[in-house]
Amino acid sequence: MVKINDNYSKLPGSYLFSTIGKKVREYSGLHPDKKIIRLGIGDVTLPLAPAIIDSLHSAVDEMGKAETFKGYAPDLGYEFLREAIAENDYRLRGCQIAADEIFVSDGAKCDSGNIQEIFSTDSCIAVCDPVYPVYVDSNVMAGRTGDYDSDMGTWSDVIYMPCTADNGFLPALPKETPDLIYLCFPNNPTGAAVTKARLQEWVDYALKVGAVILYDAAYEAYITQDDVPHSIYECQGARGCAIELRSFSKNAGFTGLRLGFTVVPKELECGGALLHSLWARRHGTKYNGAPYIVQRAGEAVYSEAGKAQLAEQIAYYRKNADYIYNGLKEAGYTVSGGVNSPYVWLKTPEGMTSWAFFDHLLERANVVGTPGSGFGPSGEGYFRLTAFGSYENTVEAVDRIKAL
Amino acid sequence: MVKINDNYSKLPGSYLFSTIGKKVREYSGLHPDKKIIRLGIGDVTLPLAPAIIDSLHSAVDEMGKAETFKGYAPDLGYEFLREAIAENDYRLRGCQIAADEIFVSDGAKCDSGNIQEIFSTDSCIAVCDPVYPVYVDSNVMAGRTGDYDSDMGTWSDVIYMPCTADNGFLPALPKETPDLIYLCFPNNPTGAAVTKARLQEWVDYALKVGAVILYDAAYEAYITQDDVPHSIYECQGARGCAIELRSFSKNAGFTGLRLGFTVVPKELECGGALLHSLWARRHGTKYNGAPYIVQRAGEAVYSEAGKAQLAEQIAYYRKNADYIYNGLKEAGYTVSGGVNSPYVWLKTPEGMTSWAFFDHLLERANVVGTPGSGFGPSGEGYFRLTAFGSYENTVEAVDRIKAL
Repeated sequence: MVKINDNYSKLPGSYLFSTIGKKVREYSGLHPDKKIIRLGIGDVTLPLAPAIIDSLHSAVDEMGKAETFKGYAPDLGYEFLREAIAENDYRLRGCQIAADEIFVSDGAKCDSGNIQEIFSTDSCIAVCDPVYPVYVDSNVMAGRTGDYDSDMGTWSDVIYMPCTADNGFLPALPKETPDLIYLCFPNNPTGAAVTKARLQEWVDYALKVGAVILYDAAYEAYITQDDVPHSIYECQGARGCAIELRSFSKNAGFTGLRLGFTVVPKELECGGALLHSLWARRHGTKYNGAPYIVQRAGEAVYSEAGKAQLAEQIAYYRKNADYIYNGLKEAGYTVSGGVNSPYVWLKTPEGMTSWAFFDHLLERANVVGTPGSGFGPSGEGYFRLTAFGSYENTVEAVDRIKAL
Repeated sequence: MVKINDNYSKLPGSYLFSTIGKKVREYSGLHPDKKIIRLGIGDVTLPLAPAIIDSLHSAVDEMGKAETFKGYAPDLGYEFLREAIAENDYRLRGCQIAADEIFVSDGAKCDSGNIQEIFSTDSCIAVCDPVYPVYVDSNVMAGRTGDYDSDMGTWSDVIYMPCTADNGFLPALPKETPDLIYLCFPNNPTGAAVTKARLQEWVDYALKVGAVILYDAAYEAYITQDDVPHSIYECQGARGCAIELRSFSKNAGFTGLRLGFTVVPKELECGGALLHSLWARRHGTKYNGAPYIVQRAGEAVYSEAGKAQLAEQIAYYRKNADYIYNGLKEAGYTVSGGVNSPYVWLKTPEGMTSWAFFDHLLERANVVGTPGSGFGPSGEGYFRLTAFGSYENTVEAVDRIKAL
């Protein structure tokens, strides 16, 4: 008699964004006349840039002709894309990352969910609190966590690193020693950024205790401050302890096109095994490459025209982040994030819980955000707003909140 | 100190097709003047059909305009595609499968590698021998197998079901009772097809012993005989014991575009848990949907124009299969498969091993095929040729083999 993976049964309720979606659908159903503005889920709204559209059309044409048709992609991704990434995202920033250390994928969500597979199931993970739910849930599914404490909203056998106003939303080095450390900077959900000096402390720590850092840099395009690193490989020694996950979703609007990549340095090893070989084996066995046309679109992100057009898109979203940040601050809210990030993290007023504030904003301002408690217990009493809406909607949403 | 997933260390050598690729590159390097014809890996060669190209261009245009831009896709896939699949692949064949039982993905390889995750790690798997390596390797990675016997080429704690000339390459019901049964018909690599009556025996067996059948129907478009089912759901009771995996790679040439789907009936349960909910949770947590433009391309597969154009493509590849099958038969080879399948399975001559015959064909005829032993011990002494080349190359390859 077949049995299920019992770890799935431990997972409470459904995924945060599904719950939000359901609440919004219910409210809309009851109030079809209300104009709801969504600053919740981190989905972009600007259309793909012209350089990317041109590249897609031309790749589609190639797929329609026998001479240029492309079937199965190379396991690691096409050389043209991996070279463009290595050059632009790494070598130009002074990081020594080779093209064959880059694994192209269909997105950082998949990679951040799958990367844990190459580590032993008794590895102890450390995560920030609040945290992007995928890091934790994928480890629950793999059996790396104990039991869920529904009062606390935490799992036993997981090291939580609180990110609170007291520490500027930057985690302290953990007291217990983890095997795997998930870090995401600029952070989702708090929008906090880490300086190179602070990140270097994490790299030194991981090297000392023999841990691997899984570094999610999906939001690096929003960095404005000079002392904030775009890649963990800007830190000394990171090649010996860090895997980096990247996305094309937030810098180039690929949320519906699906493209990302993971960097695994060739010398990164655990007990004599090369993580690069393990991830390559996983990729080769369970994955079949991102679509050729999407990889060509990714290449266009690094073209002259692509860079210029995407700089404008980022500037557009940054202007939204500024409007949210400054508008709410003027209205008396306590806000952080936003400066190096598309996310603004605000303290709920008058001690409201995150979900109470969610309902309050949905019902009173018809604005959708994300309850901080959905990201972990230290997120309780906080709320995330994203800069990915249109400027007009963002202004309207913030003005509605200010008028409450 | 972090440790790796030790199951990876158990995996012998590298993936079959990587090894073939390496051997071919080495031979080409030494003999750059030789025209090598590849009838090895199951990759298609015809360009995408015009209806699909049109649909891609139009979806790309949508992505370039704010009003029609699409970000994150729905977890299960877009309704338009799931409806087209439910209608054309199921309801028109008399199978009761609803659109919300279909999970759109980026391909059957990924799904067949990932589907094991929702079952307990102590599940016992049964696989055909020879077998598509992904079924076994993904279970090795998850720790469901014992040790590898490198002399035999088999794993302990796995039920192998030999598919040999004696049983017409159709497995017998196993003597030990499995929890998960992987079946692929029309089969990769043997090209053998199962009749509806024989498949019904498997469904009855699975229902009796409480096993789940993971049914890979990636090659159903090549079925020519009336008594061969296109879906396992043509069998009575299959909704209570079977998950079906499908691909757009072989019926529509999407190997480089990446699209597939998995059907999990809503009432399919294990110990009270609904597999539909588990797979939905896995999809929601570790996957982010197939690209919108690719899902639109999938929809075009079911349009009037798409159907007509793809029928021509299938007919083209079928003609190749016929030429290989008949040509080798005339030349005195023992051949099977081919009739309901793009794969022809031939017995190596004069007791050569599969890899000896691979080298022989590569060196003497400059033709690349796939050694049967790469798919399991019962594949030893067999060889797979695929019908996915151009007609001209297929004819030339077969004629070269005949001339040996």
